[in-house]
Amino acid sequence: MSLRLAVTAALVLVTLPVAHAQFAKPEDAVKYRQSAMFMMNHHAARLGAMAQGKVAWNAEVAGANAETLATLAKLPWQAFTAGTDRGDTRAKADVWSDNAKFTASAQKLQDETARLAAAAKAGDQAAMKSAFGEVGRTCKGCHDQFRKD
Amino acid sequence: MSLRLAVTAALVLVTLPVAHAQFAKPEDAVKYRQSAMFMMNHHAARLGAMAQGKVAWNAEVAGANAETLATLAKLPWQAFTAGTDRGDTRAKADVWSDNAKFTASAQKLQDETARLAAAAKAGDQAAMKSAFGEVGRTCKGCHDQFRKD
Repeated sequence: MSLRLAVTAALVLVTLPVAHAQFAKPEDAVKYRQSAMFMMNHHAARLGAMAQGKVAWNAEVAGANAETLATLAKLPWQAFTAGTDRGDTRAKADVWSDNAKFTASAQKLQDETARLAAAAKAGDQAAMKSAFGEVGRTCKGCHDQFRKD
Repeated sequence: MSLRLAVTAALVLVTLPVAHAQFAKPEDAVKYRQSAMFMMNHHAARLGAMAQGKVAWNAEVAGANAETLATLAKLPWQAFTAGTDRGDTRAKADVWSDNAKFTASAQKLQDETARLAAAAKAGDQAAMKSAFGEVGRTCKGCHDQFRKD
């Protein structure tokens, strides 16, 4: 490693949390999953506006949003680590006590968003609307059991 | 659209911001880009720990983190929309006044994180370390000009 690279890496690391564990602090895990969910909501809203005809259908925009949504849908789950059921979180205890069902719901969202992305990228507006409905039901079903109002 | 689908879609939409515009509110754009940056920082930290030997090298973990980082690196820029230079943001006016350079820096990060992902996925530890250094320099270079301390 060159001196310049070593110095730069040290500078970078100063601003980054220690990553021995997956998350440096429980709050970071909470913030990580909330960040992913917030971004997912944004992309879902853009798709929803198209599905509802509030925004003109555009296959390219729909495809890009759905692909991003499907990618983001893989991320929050790693951050529901032990000990992150308190603090600034709406996660219910069920996330941990009924974890098999939570994990299955998380997988279902990944499957349904992948289907949505495939439909949107194929430019199939009817299939996209149908898949979007299923994504919405999956969001709601999981939130009903696992998220506080 | 079936009644059940229509009802569900309506339920979902109630909880989503209106998406006529790309972002419903300037604060949403700020929160979106901060969310993406926070997540990027998390994945960069995990890669940094490996690059520095603080965590054992694992090609699969490195590849997954680098791929997620490269995907996330595409996202923040769409959220630096006009009028989002105020409020709870550390973005400097330069983002908008020197936007060509900002956009070039954003593209450089996407290019460098893609290189990092390729190296990590190929299991090439030396190339991954080198690419990580370049990603770090790109982060820092952009933050120095475009982010308040």
